[in-house]
Amino acid sequence: MTIDDIHEQILKKQSFLSVGLDVDLNKIPPHLLQTEDPIFEFCKAIIDATHDLAVAYKPNTAFFEAYGLKGWHALEKTIAYLNEKHPEVFTIADAKRGDIGNTSAMYAKAFLEDMNFDSITVAPYMGKDSVEPFLAVHDKFTILLALTSNEGAFDFQTKKTGDAELYKTVLETSKTWKNSQNLMYVVGATKAEYFKEIRKIIPHNFILVPGVGAQGGSLEEVCKYGINNKVGLLVNSSRAIIYASTGEDFAEKAREEAIKVQQQMADLLLDSQISRIVI
Amino acid sequence: MTIDDIHEQILKKQSFLSVGLDVDLNKIPPHLLQTEDPIFEFCKAIIDATHDLAVAYKPNTAFFEAYGLKGWHALEKTIAYLNEKHPEVFTIADAKRGDIGNTSAMYAKAFLEDMNFDSITVAPYMGKDSVEPFLAVHDKFTILLALTSNEGAFDFQTKKTGDAELYKTVLETSKTWKNSQNLMYVVGATKAEYFKEIRKIIPHNFILVPGVGAQGGSLEEVCKYGINNKVGLLVNSSRAIIYASTGEDFAEKAREEAIKVQQQMADLLLDSQISRIVI
Repeated sequence: MTIDDIHEQILKKQSFLSVGLDVDLNKIPPHLLQTEDPIFEFCKAIIDATHDLAVAYKPNTAFFEAYGLKGWHALEKTIAYLNEKHPEVFTIADAKRGDIGNTSAMYAKAFLEDMNFDSITVAPYMGKDSVEPFLAVHDKFTILLALTSNEGAFDFQTKKTGDAELYKTVLETSKTWKNSQNLMYVVGATKAEYFKEIRKIIPHNFILVPGVGAQGGSLEEVCKYGINNKVGLLVNSSRAIIYASTGEDFAEKAREEAIKVQQQMADLLLDSQISRIVI
Repeated sequence: MTIDDIHEQILKKQSFLSVGLDVDLNKIPPHLLQTEDPIFEFCKAIIDATHDLAVAYKPNTAFFEAYGLKGWHALEKTIAYLNEKHPEVFTIADAKRGDIGNTSAMYAKAFLEDMNFDSITVAPYMGKDSVEPFLAVHDKFTILLALTSNEGAFDFQTKKTGDAELYKTVLETSKTWKNSQNLMYVVGATKAEYFKEIRKIIPHNFILVPGVGAQGGSLEEVCKYGINNKVGLLVNSSRAIIYASTGEDFAEKAREEAIKVQQQMADLLLDSQISRIVI
């Protein structure tokens, strides 16, 4: 998948919504627990109910791994289902991996080749040779953690390294890596005021934005500073959509929540087009 | 498992060797590929041949995930085998995880509770609330990346954050986290000269040391600066031991390599005891 494919989909759906699939068996509708594969059935129902409103799905690998073999099987089924039924959507393995070169190559194989995700989230701490094996995979994206949405982001990410904060050093440094055109970045919506500076460093890359909704970030603020000429944003919502109801109507309620977000996004896209024309 | 249990095992075996299980089907003896579960059979044979020489085993999760469901199943079988047959050894899930709180809690459940590893490696980039869910698990250890053995370690880890390099800031900061007594750290053997400074910051914690052998670090140098009064080191070797031979004698050759390392370690333990007495 290319940046242009993603952009085209955003314009068509008037949405830059990513739906996070954080499947917790304690939170899904109880009637699904009777099925043979509750995790997959839940994901499938959410995808079926929202695929015309979302441009990306982001299974969070932790929530699958937490259920061992069954969870891993459900992850494989979920990505296979997305690739078969909805090949137009952008798929994100939210795995936050990163290790020495030969190990990162194994993770890249698992997620980008064998499971055929379009992208994977990667932690930057181990530097260049821990990220380049992901970047080497053709037509795939590596989504590097820059400034995350949690409180702990202030422990190290915003610490000054020389003149710039660590997350800015990560952004700048990563631009020098091989196949850096395949980079996207994670920047939390809870830190919307940082987007202005960030866009100066990475004007063209897509940014995956967690933290809208349950974590309290503002969609409007993020768009104000984050949108670029290809839109350049994938804003993720997990709990607010997928756990909108725990009744048998969960998929319908998830759709209602996704519609709300999509409509806000359509308005913001319109505003940004107007402001571009005005400028 | 407690620090004292690990220390006791080190004294008994006169070894602080961790054997890394990085199972690559392209590198294991071809005759194993005929078995139903080559990954597990390989791990089992290596464990059986070395368990009296090693105090820890470190399955690298990437190498299991790379084989999908079968790989995940082999990982579950390997840790179950270790826990059942060799409960005295310290087990390390080399997973390098780390995410926002509720996600890290899921990873902690998967590795420390369900699979019952004694420890897991964790990346520090996302800060306190991404690590504390691991630290909260009773009688388990969280092995935080500090200064890794790869070249990319110089991209961010050694960048100055104020007065100290980032890895020192990670060490200092992590000491303030809840249940920090459950912390161990990764420090690469390729950076042995850093151990002196590191031991000033974390005199008591165990350090997991990759990078001896294939990556070129010196065991003697590491010991010189890294040993503390509970030894405090787990030095890992993966490829040099597990791929000592690709013939039918692979387990025997792995044992021979492990004996070499163990004997070096026994000598270094003796030296360090003598130097302690002399001091």
